Amino acid sequence: MIEDKNKSLTSISELGEFGLINHLTKNFKIQHKSTIKGVGDDAAVLNITKKQILVTTDLLIEGVHFDLSYMPLKHLGYKAVMVNLSDVYAMNGDATQITVSIAVSNRFSLEALEELYEGIHLACKSYGIDLVGGDTTSSTKGLLISITAIGEVKKEDVVYRNTAKESDLLVVTGDLGAAYLGLQVLEREKQVFEVNPNSQPDLTNYSYLIERQLKPEARKDIVKLLKDLDVKPTAMIDISDGLSSEILHICTQSKVGCDLYEEKIPLDPQVISTCEEFDLNSTTIALSGGEDYELLFTISQKDFLKIKANPHLTVIGHITEENMGVNLVTRANQKIKLTAQGWNALKGD
Amino acid sequence: MIEDKNKSLTSISELGEFGLINHLTKNFKIQHKSTIKGVGDDAAVLNITKKQILVTTDLLIEGVHFDLSYMPLKHLGYKAVMVNLSDVYAMNGDATQITVSIAVSNRFSLEALEELYEGIHLACKSYGIDLVGGDTTSSTKGLLISITAIGEVKKEDVVYRNTAKESDLLVVTGDLGAAYLGLQVLEREKQVFEVNPNSQPDLTNYSYLIERQLKPEARKDIVKLLKDLDVKPTAMIDISDGLSSEILHICTQSKVGCDLYEEKIPLDPQVISTCEEFDLNSTTIALSGGEDYELLFTISQKDFLKIKANPHLTVIGHITEENMGVNLVTRANQKIKLTAQGWNALKGD
Repeated sequence: MIEDKNKSLTSISELGEFGLINHLTKNFKIQHKSTIKGVGDDAAVLNITKKQILVTTDLLIEGVHFDLSYMPLKHLGYKAVMVNLSDVYAMNGDATQITVSIAVSNRFSLEALEELYEGIHLACKSYGIDLVGGDTTSSTKGLLISITAIGEVKKEDVVYRNTAKESDLLVVTGDLGAAYLGLQVLEREKQVFEVNPNSQPDLTNYSYLIERQLKPEARKDIVKLLKDLDVKPTAMIDISDGLSSEILHICTQSKVGCDLYEEKIPLDPQVISTCEEFDLNSTTIALSGGEDYELLFTISQKDFLKIKANPHLTVIGHITEENMGVNLVTRANQKIKLTAQGWNALKGD
Repeated sequence: MIEDKNKSLTSISELGEFGLINHLTKNFKIQHKSTIKGVGDDAAVLNITKKQILVTTDLLIEGVHFDLSYMPLKHLGYKAVMVNLSDVYAMNGDATQITVSIAVSNRFSLEALEELYEGIHLACKSYGIDLVGGDTTSSTKGLLISITAIGEVKKEDVVYRNTAKESDLLVVTGDLGAAYLGLQVLEREKQVFEVNPNSQPDLTNYSYLIERQLKPEARKDIVKLLKDLDVKPTAMIDISDGLSSEILHICTQSKVGCDLYEEKIPLDPQVISTCEEFDLNSTTIALSGGEDYELLFTISQKDFLKIKANPHLTVIGHITEENMGVNLVTRANQKIKLTAQGWNALKGD
């Protein structure tokens, strides 16, 4: 949160739009044979034969989706890519290309945008993604990032949301709620900093939570793991808005019900201890927190032995008939109807 | 510019994000066999075999790219699609799908967004485009539209910017400068209206200019025409930033020079008369105005007879050696070095 005011910063308008794009993208290397032409023409040209193509897009807006007072620009660039890749993996596909459009107000220097693109670059390198286009323009207020991700998937491998079947098992990857708590910790520190700019916060106890908020990883590894285990999910979605909202998407679209077991929901020890400290219910946080970017999927019972005891996968419930409804089975063995309290980007406005 | 303040308008937050997307996209029909899955999952699924895939994206921001005081939302929706399709046609391809992301502040009602999507819908219907995804979120200020267009093209048909050859002819479609002048007329009327809200402007003399600004058409017809004429351009680009800027893109990327003949630049009579009225030089307007969304391309001289006398196509110059430079040959037969004074979205900030 401390800026060096003495650094001499470059104004974006000095480069012009095309100079800026060239400058920001010059270190990006093309990794896929399917990318015939990347940045630099009216459109990118891709050659994806024999597979189906996945397309997904997300918009991140300063003041709505992120706060630059605690989100470093490099992390923001990285996270903006992850949010989109996560949607491709949720189709059981492989992400291959992205386009990145940004709008910036004149408060951003070239050096700031370089930092943002450093994060985008790192994400592309780590996940094997080609940057193939985008648009760069000015905004009247703040920073805005719009990313479209392209992926590929064999026709027989694609997994939709609407194909869960009765008696399937409901499985989640990783653990839930940490990203939301990371945001709460950062918000608290921001307030402390505003009162006392010399405060030196000790965030050791929240390191996992903060990492999950600032540098989430999309679960490319799970798509590979499932192939290795020879398991094809019957339905899949990524967890961006919170577990309940995503379960309801799968159930509504598949026309099924579900029993979710509270005691099975995977939580990191830091989530449990921080919930106690903040006097929050950890189940509520896991259900509604959002931004976990884990994968939620259903599998046929016959595949249970293949995934059993895998440290990345937790069975948290099972699919029922539609008229049984979508329920949380509490630790006290009570059934409560699940509602989508997932974070709603429109609600805050 | 007159609003009926008595209409009862619906707040967007009443529907929630998913309700809103469903509501706005429910009338869109899938037209392409290649669209396997459109809106409603983590990603769209497309099946484009045997062809190469084109991807392009553009960002339109209120206060930077459009002014809602004279741009009706329906026209804005239509134009936002055209801007993207134009880039696909500029690759000599066929546009097939789009994703549309919007961010809106709470000053926009559901009815306003319905109007915007009516324009998007009309564009999709007229040009044979499937809406396959997007993102809807709130903004802290104004309206923002981010569209990604997907297209397809046979491998042997794709036309890049960087392949113009010496002695090729430089050809432009339609006429130039009208969209920019339309904007000037609308800006003037806005100022008149601010002084006297009861003024009734007579815009008959500017009808073509205003239509070119508010409802541009992407030149899908030209891609077909060129196929029918059996002409494959050697290089192609669309004119979004003004003729000079686009010529310079082709020449720089192709490592060639160019002579552009002032007397050949196609101008509509309304452009000429309005330039006189506004005391503007019509050549400057055609060179730097932008937003024409015409196609600029080069062809081999052997194809000249195929395009000669076609009312949609005008030969405006020819390609030279790189060291001859990029020049405008004036009516007085003087050579002037061409500079990119094309409209730069970053300059205004």
